[in-house]
Amino acid sequence: MELNEARAKYKKLQEKLAAFDHATSLISFDGVTTAPKGTAENRSQTLSVLTEEEYLLSTGKETVELLEYLDSRKDELTEKEKRSVYLALKDIRQMQKIPMDEYIEYEKLMVEADDVWHRAKEASDFELFRPLLERIVEFTLRFAGYCAPEKDPYDYWIDQYAEGLTTKTCDKFFDALKSRIVPLLKRISEKPQISDACICGDFDKKAQEEFAYELMKTIGLDLSHCGLAETEHPFTTSLGSHHDVRITTNYHRENVSYSMYSVIHEGGHALYDSGSEDELAYTNLDGGASSQSRFYENILGRSRGFISYLFPVMRRFFPEQMKNYTEEDLYKAVNLVTPSLIRTEADEVTYCLHIMIRYDLEKRLMHGELKVKDLPSEWNRLYKEYLGIDVPNDREGVLQDSHWSGGLIGYFPSYALGSAYGAQFLRKMREEINVDECLAKGDFAPINEWNRERIWKYGQMKKPQDILEDVFGEPFDPTVYTDYLEKKYTGIYNL
Amino acid sequence: MELNEARAKYKKLQEKLAAFDHATSLISFDGVTTAPKGTAENRSQTLSVLTEEEYLLSTGKETVELLEYLDSRKDELTEKEKRSVYLALKDIRQMQKIPMDEYIEYEKLMVEADDVWHRAKEASDFELFRPLLERIVEFTLRFAGYCAPEKDPYDYWIDQYAEGLTTKTCDKFFDALKSRIVPLLKRISEKPQISDACICGDFDKKAQEEFAYELMKTIGLDLSHCGLAETEHPFTTSLGSHHDVRITTNYHRENVSYSMYSVIHEGGHALYDSGSEDELAYTNLDGGASSQSRFYENILGRSRGFISYLFPVMRRFFPEQMKNYTEEDLYKAVNLVTPSLIRTEADEVTYCLHIMIRYDLEKRLMHGELKVKDLPSEWNRLYKEYLGIDVPNDREGVLQDSHWSGGLIGYFPSYALGSAYGAQFLRKMREEINVDECLAKGDFAPINEWNRERIWKYGQMKKPQDILEDVFGEPFDPTVYTDYLEKKYTGIYNL
Repeated sequence: MELNEARAKYKKLQEKLAAFDHATSLISFDGVTTAPKGTAENRSQTLSVLTEEEYLLSTGKETVELLEYLDSRKDELTEKEKRSVYLALKDIRQMQKIPMDEYIEYEKLMVEADDVWHRAKEASDFELFRPLLERIVEFTLRFAGYCAPEKDPYDYWIDQYAEGLTTKTCDKFFDALKSRIVPLLKRISEKPQISDACICGDFDKKAQEEFAYELMKTIGLDLSHCGLAETEHPFTTSLGSHHDVRITTNYHRENVSYSMYSVIHEGGHALYDSGSEDELAYTNLDGGASSQSRFYENILGRSRGFISYLFPVMRRFFPEQMKNYTEEDLYKAVNLVTPSLIRTEADEVTYCLHIMIRYDLEKRLMHGELKVKDLPSEWNRLYKEYLGIDVPNDREGVLQDSHWSGGLIGYFPSYALGSAYGAQFLRKMREEINVDECLAKGDFAPINEWNRERIWKYGQMKKPQDILEDVFGEPFDPTVYTDYLEKKYTGIYNL
Repeated sequence: MELNEARAKYKKLQEKLAAFDHATSLISFDGVTTAPKGTAENRSQTLSVLTEEEYLLSTGKETVELLEYLDSRKDELTEKEKRSVYLALKDIRQMQKIPMDEYIEYEKLMVEADDVWHRAKEASDFELFRPLLERIVEFTLRFAGYCAPEKDPYDYWIDQYAEGLTTKTCDKFFDALKSRIVPLLKRISEKPQISDACICGDFDKKAQEEFAYELMKTIGLDLSHCGLAETEHPFTTSLGSHHDVRITTNYHRENVSYSMYSVIHEGGHALYDSGSEDELAYTNLDGGASSQSRFYENILGRSRGFISYLFPVMRRFFPEQMKNYTEEDLYKAVNLVTPSLIRTEADEVTYCLHIMIRYDLEKRLMHGELKVKDLPSEWNRLYKEYLGIDVPNDREGVLQDSHWSGGLIGYFPSYALGSAYGAQFLRKMREEINVDECLAKGDFAPINEWNRERIWKYGQMKKPQDILEDVFGEPFDPTVYTDYLEKKYTGIYNL
C-alpha cells in the first residue's frame, strides 16, 4: 500500500463513520423529541443494524490493517493524522476485546432502557426499570473486565469519561470539597433564607422558548448551526460534525430559571462542540474533549455581571412577572442555596453533594457492595445524610437522571470536576479579559474567543488534562473553586 | 450455498437496506422540519456517504449473486420472498445500468437542489433554480437512456411512478377529462360564485395544530405510530418500516382549509403506507404501492356526509370564526370551484387542469421540445390558456411544487389518475358499506377496514394495476370520475 493511498482510504473511512454517527445520533434525537410514542421498537431495529455496520467498519480486518500500516509510518503523518490514528487504534483495541454479539445486545438494551426509564420515571416506579439497570450494571462490569482486567472496574469507567481520573483522585477531591462545602452550607443555613419569588410564578411556554433563543444568541451560539428542541431531560448532541449541533431544554411554567439555565448549560456544551477547527470536521478529532457546560451555566451565567445584563432582557420577555423586582432580587434568586431533590436544579453549593451521592453509589455498585434492588433505599438514605432531606418518590429520587439508563456509569464525577476547573479558568481569563465588564454588556465574544483559541479549536487533538494544564500554566487546584464559592456566597448571604 | 442460508442472508440484507432508508429519510425529514438553516451542506456530506453505502449494498456483487441464486430456486420460495426477490432484481438490473459515480453525483444534486429550490421559491427567482433544474433534466434523460434506451424517456419515467402507464394512455385519459371538465367549468363560471367566507379569517396556528391532530385521529391514523410536523410543502415519509410514518402540513392563518385538507391528503398516504401486514416490515414489500391521498382528501373529505360531521367539530376549535355560518356554508366553501394559481389548493374540478399543464411541460422537456430556461414563460402561457389566469410571479408559478427539485419528473400524471381511481373505489365501496352514513358519524373504521383488506395489507405484493382491477372487478373507467364530478357540482352550483 502507498502511504498516500492509505491516507485517502483513512479519510474516507472517517467520513463513513461520521455519517453513521450522524444517522444514529439523529435517530436517537428524533426518539426523544419528535417521534410518535409507539415507535421505540422500530428505532431499536434500525439502530441495531446501523450499530453492527458501524462496529464492523471501525473494527474490521481491513480497518485494523489500514490503521496499523499508518501507525507504522506515523512519523510521515501530519500531527492531526497521527493523533486521529492513535485514538482510533486505542478505541479498536478496546472494542476488539468486546465480543460483537454482546456489543450489539448492549446497544439494543440502550434503546429499550431509555424507553423503559422514561416510563418508569413517569410512573415513579423503580421496579419497572430495575431489571434493565441490572443488565446495564452487568454489562458495565463485564465490559470493564474485557477491556482492562487488571483495573478496578470503576476506575476503568471514570477514566473513560475523564482521561487520567481515578477513584483515588476523586476520593481526595471530594473529601477536600466536603471539608469546605459542608461548613459553608451550615453557615448559610443559619442565615435568613433569601427569596426566589422573582423567578417563580406563571411563565408562558412560548415566551420561555423565545427567551431561550435570545439566550442562545447572547452566549454566542450560531443559530444557523445550532438548534433547540424540547425533551424530558436536556442534552446536547452533534450530528455528523460540529457544523450541526442540537441542544434541548424543558420548560417549567412555574419557574423560569429551569429552562434558562439548562439552555446556558447545554449551550456551554454546544459552544465547545461547535468550536473545533473546520479541518477537524468528519474526523474522530471533531467536537469537545471535555465540557464547559457548568462554567457557562454557573460561573458566567449566575454571576453578578451577567445578571445586570439579563435583568432588563427578562423584563422585556416577562414584563408582568418581573415588574415588582430588582436586579439584585434576580441575582439572589438564581443563587439561592438550599438542599433540594433534583441535581440539575441544584445550586452551586449543594451541587457537588448530589454528585458525591451518585459517586458513592456507583462505586459500591461497581465493587459489588451494593445491589441494584437496594439503590432506592440507599439513595434516599444518602440524601437524608448529605442534604438532610427526605426523598418522597423514585421519580424525584433515584430515577431522576438519564445517565444510568444510557449506560453512563462513572460519568457523574466529571461534572463536579468541571465546576472546579471552571473556577480556575475564570481566574486565568481575568488576567487578560475584563470578564465582569463583558458579562455586564452581554458581550460573550471576547470570552468565547479566549476559549476558542486556547481550548475549543483543538477538538480532541489534545488530551483534556493537557489542555487544562496548558491553559492554567499550573496544576489543577480545587481550592480555587472552594475559595470562589466561599467568596461569592459570603457576599450573597452576608456571612 | 444452502437455500435456507440464502434466505436468512436475504432477510438480513433487507433489514440493512431498511435501516439505511430509515437513516436517509430521517435526515431529509430533519432537514425540512427541525434542522438549523445553515446545515444543508453537512447533511449533504452524510447523505452522499450513506447513499454510496446503500448503493453498494443493494447492487454489489455478493447481493447480485444472492438474488440470482434465490431467483434460480424461486419455486421453493414463499410468495412474499418470490415477489421481493423479483422487485429487488428488477431494481438492480436498473441500477446496474447507471454508473455509480453518476448516481452519487445525482443524490448530491438532490440535496443541493432542494435547498436552492427553497431559496429560489422564497425569492421568487427561477433563475436561481434554473441551473439545477437543467442538471436534473439532463440526469433524468441520461438515466432513462441508460435504463431503457428503447423507450421514450417520458414513457420510461411515467412507468416508474405508475407501473404500466404510458404517454399514450395519459393523452387519451386527459383528452377524455378535458372534454368533460372544460364544459363543466364553463357552466359553473356562468353561475353566481359561492362564498368561502366561513373558512377565511384569522385562525390561530396553535388551534389549527390541535385541529390537525383531531383530524388525524378521526380519519383513523394511530398517533402512536404516525407523527405530524410543519414544513413548507406537505409530504409523507416512512422511517424504516410502516411502524413509523410522518406527515407534514403548513398552516395558513388566513385560511383554515389549507392545513385541514393537506392533513387529510397526507393522512391518506399515511393510512395506506402504515396499513401493510406486519410481516412486510423491513422488506422491500412494505408500504403503499400507490396512493389514496386524493381519495381521502376530496372524495371522502369534501363530501356532504363528512362535512356534516366536521362542522360541529370545527365550531369547537374555532368558535369565533365559525359562529355565523352553517354546515351548508362549510360544504360549499370547501367545494368552491375557481381557477387558481396553486395546484395543492385547487378544487376538484380545476385540479386536473393543473396536472395537464405539468404533463404537457414535462413531456416537451423530455422530448427536447422545450428548454428549461423557457419553462416560466410556457408555464404562464398555459395557465392563461387552460385556466384563464395570469401568473404574477415564479413563486406562485413554476416554482410552486417541490417535485422537480426532488427529481420527480413524470410523477404528476399519477395524481390525476389517483383522483379518477378514487371515484371508482367509492362506487365499489358503496356496494358493501353505507359510506355516507359512516362519514356523517366521523366513523372511518369500516372504510379503512375495507381498504386495508383489499388494498393496504398487500403493500407492494401486487402491482398497483392488479390491485385496482381486483378491487374494481372491471377495467378502469375514467367516466366514473367525470360522472361523479358532474353530479356533485351540478348539486353545489345548481347547474
